[in-house]
Amino acid sequence: MHRHIVNTPGKAAEEALEGLALTHPYLVEYDRQTGLVTRRRPARDKVGLVSGGGSGHEPLHAGFVGAGMLDVAVPGALFASPTALQVHLGTVAADAGRGVVQIVKNYTGDVLNFRIAGELAEDESVRTEVVLVDDDLATDGADGGPGRRGTAAVLAVEKICGAAAEAGADLGEVASLGRRVAGYARTLSLALRAGTHPGADEPAFVLPDGEIELGVGIHGERGTGRIPFADADTLVGQLVDPVVSALELSRGSSVIAIVNGLGGTSPLELSIAVRAAHRRLKDLGITVARSLAGSYVTSLDMHGVSVTLLPAEDSLLPLWDAPVRTPALTW
Amino acid sequence: MHRHIVNTPGKAAEEALEGLALTHPYLVEYDRQTGLVTRRRPARDKVGLVSGGGSGHEPLHAGFVGAGMLDVAVPGALFASPTALQVHLGTVAADAGRGVVQIVKNYTGDVLNFRIAGELAEDESVRTEVVLVDDDLATDGADGGPGRRGTAAVLAVEKICGAAAEAGADLGEVASLGRRVAGYARTLSLALRAGTHPGADEPAFVLPDGEIELGVGIHGERGTGRIPFADADTLVGQLVDPVVSALELSRGSSVIAIVNGLGGTSPLELSIAVRAAHRRLKDLGITVARSLAGSYVTSLDMHGVSVTLLPAEDSLLPLWDAPVRTPALTW
Repeated sequence: MHRHIVNTPGKAAEEALEGLALTHPYLVEYDRQTGLVTRRRPARDKVGLVSGGGSGHEPLHAGFVGAGMLDVAVPGALFASPTALQVHLGTVAADAGRGVVQIVKNYTGDVLNFRIAGELAEDESVRTEVVLVDDDLATDGADGGPGRRGTAAVLAVEKICGAAAEAGADLGEVASLGRRVAGYARTLSLALRAGTHPGADEPAFVLPDGEIELGVGIHGERGTGRIPFADADTLVGQLVDPVVSALELSRGSSVIAIVNGLGGTSPLELSIAVRAAHRRLKDLGITVARSLAGSYVTSLDMHGVSVTLLPAEDSLLPLWDAPVRTPALTW
Repeated sequence: MHRHIVNTPGKAAEEALEGLALTHPYLVEYDRQTGLVTRRRPARDKVGLVSGGGSGHEPLHAGFVGAGMLDVAVPGALFASPTALQVHLGTVAADAGRGVVQIVKNYTGDVLNFRIAGELAEDESVRTEVVLVDDDLATDGADGGPGRRGTAAVLAVEKICGAAAEAGADLGEVASLGRRVAGYARTLSLALRAGTHPGADEPAFVLPDGEIELGVGIHGERGTGRIPFADADTLVGQLVDPVVSALELSRGSSVIAIVNGLGGTSPLELSIAVRAAHRRLKDLGITVARSLAGSYVTSLDMHGVSVTLLPAEDSLLPLWDAPVRTPALTW
């Protein structure tokens, strides 16, 4: 039997948001009526940034609300898109007079609801632009489908757009920068154990002892295939190599690397995984300009890890390095 | 079978430190020869702070090296004390001419090795003071034994001493402040699942479905007893209440609360747990002046949580709030 630290499973997402706001009262506010998480001190005279989507991926997105990153997060229930009405409220709340960039992970419900919300906001004279994040390599190349899923690259898009907005970039500039980052970044994930929904007895899928699942999504979606369980260097190499190929990185390239825990991965393992990513990239002649290791875009308590790479263009590094002060990311 | 993201289990601690240093090259350095983790830019003209102990508790202690917190961390192997020689090197490395405070969790090996190291350092004219952290309520009251274990309160001691040292306090002041914090802070922990040593097939102990272990240590030590598995509010209440009693907190008291994940606890659960702690304390009429939720002092991949409370004296809050910039704690 699988157990969680949870009260009523159907209220887990809401209670987690309350916990976040209680822990960071000087950074964020959570409004139970609207479901929105906003900055304690709303920004003025800058392009607004709103993101959102299903919960169960904590600290995403509410943990990234704050100076240098998002203005508003719109969380849905566990693994369920927020409604168009919620997103509309969030989009309007993010506006400080210079328009709003909506950062949307590529899932059918999210895309639809953000689009409707954007149209409603435009009707109220709030200019909006959408940045679609579709970084998950595991879902690349599926003809006619919804395209690649959005996963951990959304963190990079939010960080870099957030810094540009804070620095005074206009709506078109922030949106076009976000699209550039989303276009560049690719992610691949693996699981040693699937996440278990609060209240459920069994994980979303069960793996045999000798195998792990490659290409898992962040909603309990099965992966593209099973590969033998192996040591950290081998496992992480099987994430790094396809991403390097997809981005056509070659010797001398420089990247920002995000090694992301999927919820049940220990800090010890994450540090070993980020070391493995650094070593593999070094072996390939690729410089790691910046890296980040932590559980940022999770799938409940999934035991696994994802690797996101983003070419470290000179123009992106100052935005990546710019100060940020949110519950889950601060530097 | 339990599996980890790990290479050679015997090198897990070392590889994790390499990963930490690769991820935060502007904050810390890791010297494989000595095993020490030091600030990239050593501080000048302040009291030095060194801590250490067995690994397997990541991000403790190496993740707390940086401005506003530790100068040097001395990590041992997994769950094994560093040698007296290592601690001696770390103590000397932490000295910037104004003496060194050693922050030591109360375990026999650590206490012994830090004492020897302190004596060796004094022989080299490095003045040292020891702050012993013994916050674990589960081990209170054992006659003639080694006393209470040191667990998550060490984070508060390191943060507050770090701020005082940065502000120019002298050796005696930093040590006496640390002793005051350690004397005030108490912790209680519970596990839904014990941690599993890298390479081992089974966790340190196995729990029946309907029970959890109350009063666990951070080295796979069994707890003081088993209690029925329950919802988050009930479980967290069973941590908060004994700590409140032990500290003799009454209505109108104000505390700093640390809700700490033990390694395999998901961010969703931790946010629900910190909410539960806030609510329980509010019910008891106790104000939460500051709180923190995260996996800071772990026990490999144990699935569980601890609650640490520290009376929020007016003189402590500015030190708690002072800027800190380390891999695992930044504000």
